[in-house]
Amino acid sequence: MSSDPLVIFTPSGKRGHFPVGTPVLTAARQLGVDLDSVCGGRGVCSKCQITPSYGEFPKHGVTVSEDALSDWNAVEQRYDDKRGLTKGRRLGCQATVQGDIVIDVPPESQVHKQVVRKRAEVRDITLNPTVHLTYVEVEEPDMHKPSGDLERLLTALKAATGHADIAVDTHLLRALQPILRKGSWAVTAAIHQDHTDTPPRLSALWPGYFEGPVYGLAVDLGSTTIAGHLCDLTTGEVVASSGLMNPQIRFGEDLMSRVSYAMMNKGGDLEMTAAVRDGLNQLVVDIAKDAEIDPTQILDAVFVMNPVMHHLFLGIDPFELGQAPFALATSDALSLPASELGLNIAPGTRAYLLPCIAGHVGADAAGVALSEAPDKSEDLALVVDVGTNAEILLGDKNGVLACSSPTGPAFEGAQISAGQRAAPGAIERVEIDPATKEPRFRVIGSDLWSNDEGFAAAIAATGITGICGSGIIEVIAEMRLAGIVDASGLIGSAEQTGTSRCFADGRTNSYTLWEGDADQKPITVTNADIRAIQMAKAALYSGARLLMDKRGVDHVDRVVLAGAFGAHISAKHAMVLGMIPDCPLDKVTSAGNAAGTGARIALLNKDARSEIETLVRKIEKIETAVEPRFQEHFVNASALPNSADPFPILRGVVDLPEVSFNTGGGDGASGGRRRRRRS
Amino acid sequence: MSSDPLVIFTPSGKRGHFPVGTPVLTAARQLGVDLDSVCGGRGVCSKCQITPSYGEFPKHGVTVSEDALSDWNAVEQRYDDKRGLTKGRRLGCQATVQGDIVIDVPPESQVHKQVVRKRAEVRDITLNPTVHLTYVEVEEPDMHKPSGDLERLLTALKAATGHADIAVDTHLLRALQPILRKGSWAVTAAIHQDHTDTPPRLSALWPGYFEGPVYGLAVDLGSTTIAGHLCDLTTGEVVASSGLMNPQIRFGEDLMSRVSYAMMNKGGDLEMTAAVRDGLNQLVVDIAKDAEIDPTQILDAVFVMNPVMHHLFLGIDPFELGQAPFALATSDALSLPASELGLNIAPGTRAYLLPCIAGHVGADAAGVALSEAPDKSEDLALVVDVGTNAEILLGDKNGVLACSSPTGPAFEGAQISAGQRAAPGAIERVEIDPATKEPRFRVIGSDLWSNDEGFAAAIAATGITGICGSGIIEVIAEMRLAGIVDASGLIGSAEQTGTSRCFADGRTNSYTLWEGDADQKPITVTNADIRAIQMAKAALYSGARLLMDKRGVDHVDRVVLAGAFGAHISAKHAMVLGMIPDCPLDKVTSAGNAAGTGARIALLNKDARSEIETLVRKIEKIETAVEPRFQEHFVNASALPNSADPFPILRGVVDLPEVSFNTGGGDGASGGRRRRRRS
Repeated sequence: MSSDPLVIFTPSGKRGHFPVGTPVLTAARQLGVDLDSVCGGRGVCSKCQITPSYGEFPKHGVTVSEDALSDWNAVEQRYDDKRGLTKGRRLGCQATVQGDIVIDVPPESQVHKQVVRKRAEVRDITLNPTVHLTYVEVEEPDMHKPSGDLERLLTALKAATGHADIAVDTHLLRALQPILRKGSWAVTAAIHQDHTDTPPRLSALWPGYFEGPVYGLAVDLGSTTIAGHLCDLTTGEVVASSGLMNPQIRFGEDLMSRVSYAMMNKGGDLEMTAAVRDGLNQLVVDIAKDAEIDPTQILDAVFVMNPVMHHLFLGIDPFELGQAPFALATSDALSLPASELGLNIAPGTRAYLLPCIAGHVGADAAGVALSEAPDKSEDLALVVDVGTNAEILLGDKNGVLACSSPTGPAFEGAQISAGQRAAPGAIERVEIDPATKEPRFRVIGSDLWSNDEGFAAAIAATGITGICGSGIIEVIAEMRLAGIVDASGLIGSAEQTGTSRCFADGRTNSYTLWEGDADQKPITVTNADIRAIQMAKAALYSGARLLMDKRGVDHVDRVVLAGAFGAHISAKHAMVLGMIPDCPLDKVTSAGNAAGTGARIALLNKDARSEIETLVRKIEKIETAVEPRFQEHFVNASALPNSADPFPILRGVVDLPEVSFNTGGGDGASGGRRRRRRS
Repeated sequence: MSSDPLVIFTPSGKRGHFPVGTPVLTAARQLGVDLDSVCGGRGVCSKCQITPSYGEFPKHGVTVSEDALSDWNAVEQRYDDKRGLTKGRRLGCQATVQGDIVIDVPPESQVHKQVVRKRAEVRDITLNPTVHLTYVEVEEPDMHKPSGDLERLLTALKAATGHADIAVDTHLLRALQPILRKGSWAVTAAIHQDHTDTPPRLSALWPGYFEGPVYGLAVDLGSTTIAGHLCDLTTGEVVASSGLMNPQIRFGEDLMSRVSYAMMNKGGDLEMTAAVRDGLNQLVVDIAKDAEIDPTQILDAVFVMNPVMHHLFLGIDPFELGQAPFALATSDALSLPASELGLNIAPGTRAYLLPCIAGHVGADAAGVALSEAPDKSEDLALVVDVGTNAEILLGDKNGVLACSSPTGPAFEGAQISAGQRAAPGAIERVEIDPATKEPRFRVIGSDLWSNDEGFAAAIAATGITGICGSGIIEVIAEMRLAGIVDASGLIGSAEQTGTSRCFADGRTNSYTLWEGDADQKPITVTNADIRAIQMAKAALYSGARLLMDKRGVDHVDRVVLAGAFGAHISAKHAMVLGMIPDCPLDKVTSAGNAAGTGARIALLNKDARSEIETLVRKIEKIETAVEPRFQEHFVNASALPNSADPFPILRGVVDLPEVSFNTGGGDGASGGRRRRRRS
């Protein structure tokens, strides 16, 4: 047994014997304990703070005496005077081992700290960014040994980091000499090393000791909105979030109209590339202003987006994505100089784009997969990112399948007579009394129901302007539950339903959700609205059902709804419509912007990049457009909830009236008004 | 012993047994025989032409029958119809082994062919460029296996080249899909792989089979002139050469005045960077026009230059190079995207800059070292690149030393009263009769001596306009040999020398080389001219002498004069002046633009890049400015030829008159005219 003192680190439990006088930082490094240090033990950075514990430790079998560490020294005193060292803390590079000792490494001193996520069902993120700061002192030039300043800097960095092959960005060649001299031959270097074999790169340099922090940007580049999170790469914290409309919207609301724009207009793809890059730079300006930082402090950036946005962002004509076989120019993850993508952040930054899964299943779906990790799920999870195109993942730890399904914009309130985007004044929640068929509803901007006292006053400012996506789901599902709509999607007449809220409207019936007032028209649900939602939800469900076929199952254990829309959908109502497969309602959860979360995970933990790249290669991709059973599933899924799948769990929870309003005259009510011909 | 046929390749002598039916190309590859193929044996490229030999081969111990190779096939017939196959040749990928066979690989079919250099004393260059073309057929997209077009291309390239980790330039992402489709899924790829561990890169792509050639540019970026050679990377041939004045000249003739310009003018360095890059792009345009190619066919570029030009080209302020300790921002070799250097050549090209040796000894000196290879010399070689700054290398295979010496512009005709650049009308050769002290000379533009019949007519167009650098050396050396100038550099009076061509000129004497005519002033050599040359040659000689001290020798075996000026210097005259150390005259050779040749070698053979990087690290660098003995050597070297070193070999060849014109009145002749004071 060694007679050297025993050093025990918590929480890792790593232990070893070290000679008297060994700095705690040295002991930690030799044991592989995760203890941060930027300056390599020069007493400059104070990142290596530790908390010694004294007394009896029966669990560890040691007794720690008061003199187990060296005395508080001048460097520690200077730091304490200047910045204040938390009571009980020591600097690991200054305090040396004198006797058996138990040392706790607080979370702030760990490089690979955990970033806690708010949702119970998902893993926390282990911080392991691509960029690390290193403080070094560089040998001064000597005309008798005429090496370049850069070469001496690299020698110092090699000694500090162990990297023998650090590459250097061209932009630093110019900046190097003034920085070295301004820092009197001491500099802080940002070393970028990603998850691949690519050699590490010197990506930024500051004179003297630069405390940081440095930042990374995680971006979800959506067709409609661009959302970004700015993260402190040393803590993992989101320090600012910002979003803006994708400026490409002027070239077309949906993706296919943008692809068409590129096809119809020479150079149109480049116009759209310029537009989205401008938008991203606006995001950078906004978010940097919010966080009160300079955009050049942004040293990493991760992007998720659908394939069309992916190509347009890269400057690739999306032409091929508009036609079978939907060939991606490139599907693998990419790491590209941010400057080549026109981004005004730190010039040495590499932009990382998550891999695309397939021609219709983009890096955004990869982001969802990274965030929701169906591949690590014990039970079979269906993950649906609901948007104008739904990306669907089905899997567990035995394997994951993916497809996309063209739901169209109905879920976002488009194609719906009273539809609107989710905004104050929009009806978002609906209940219909099955006995009276009378509705009540809630409007974005107020927590009151429409039959609550004070409702009129509460919504006076916004009025009642329409129905948003989640409201549409609820009202149709409630109509189905109240027997106002039958399983085929037909609205009954006043006579059939026993309520005057149903009225003949052309060849079909409509339902009056709100009667209107002096300022605003009534809000009704037409049979065409129901048809639009039927088409959209049938597309979504058939995609999921195809994956279930491929997997050989007829039910799933849980459903995760991702995307902003998914966050507002009521599980019960979605299931009444047959949007999602039958499953216990408490097993339907919302993941929020999971694609964006995936980008943030890949930003904070480079191992997650390897993970998602491996997963995407392994995911089984299904192209719904050419699957023979898609059509059959689609027809069945047009019914509410479904004409083939029984939904037993749902039926155990709700009562689905067995009504039928088909009077034999096709879809339309035969007694309906016809449009008069112009004479 | 194998019963399979024996295949013997010449000139390599490699041999092996292969089953009947093995294509010759396959046999060559398995034996490691250097046989070219771009298309990997698809019968597309015809690069693998071989010449089978038939009959008895006692040397190889085989008899080759007429049916030792398969019959001429349809692919060969098609190629012959279209292009004509040289009689006796076969395509190595089509002809298969049927019996024992001797196969010659002609030089054109070798990848690593020799590029012959004209000078006897130097090695030929083995062709081994960084860029190779590969023809591949790419799997078409399949929506059931939705990989990107790029990923399928890389799979095909991996199969063809064995490279698993080919990187792709961002600019190709955009170009990829149209090229693949234009080529109907067959493409020719340029793969760039340099001499380092950096993964190979896909740097250019053409639809279908692209025959090439592709080109590389070797540039000697001088302070005064920029010279470029365009080389065919498949043959090593120089297909065009071009030169232009360095546009930076408007910021200062010599380097130090450019450094001053950068110091005195904010942004001045960037102006000069822009100017030199503009100049390089002009060179590219000129040379591409000469060769009738498109600049985008230039897929490699190598640069040599002095440290100040090196920094200005890279966009680095040369400030630090203007003061001790003359710190280079970066000294190692660099490989940078040509686009980041503003060069308008193929967008994927990397520009390679040879390493700098020291703050005053640049990549141009490294180019000289690569071309002249003192490190491989059996005898001790002194290599001098003569310019406004002389770079000096001394060494043999036991080691190499380097320094630079500030010779100033006198050797280029500046600071000389009748001096001018080498151009028609300039006196370049001089002889003086030791008895009569009468000169005769030759003028650039005519081969006649001035006392030849027809001389006047021959030079009528240009006149006699001045003396160029090599003319200055000759006239002063001839004056020394004729006893007109003494060892201390003083011109004798008419009385002392016995010729009226010497005349009092201020406080010293001058010598009339040409009397002038109605149109032009006389051309004289003043004592100030001689002083200027003395300073310059003393600087040069002292640098060489210092290296000899360090090496512990007092003579060298041979002298190589590099640089355009070196090409025109007469060895005898240079040695009479004591410019170069004493050595047999036939051991003084001229290397021409050795720096440029070094660039060309590094362009054509990537192994030469490793070689020069290794050599430069090993070279012992001497900073003359701080060597205590420099001053002593300089004073001794001010004499003609030298006041300390005896020059015995030279004295065995020429007669150096023991004259002395010092009359005790200091430098000046006491009886000389004085300038009259203005009254």
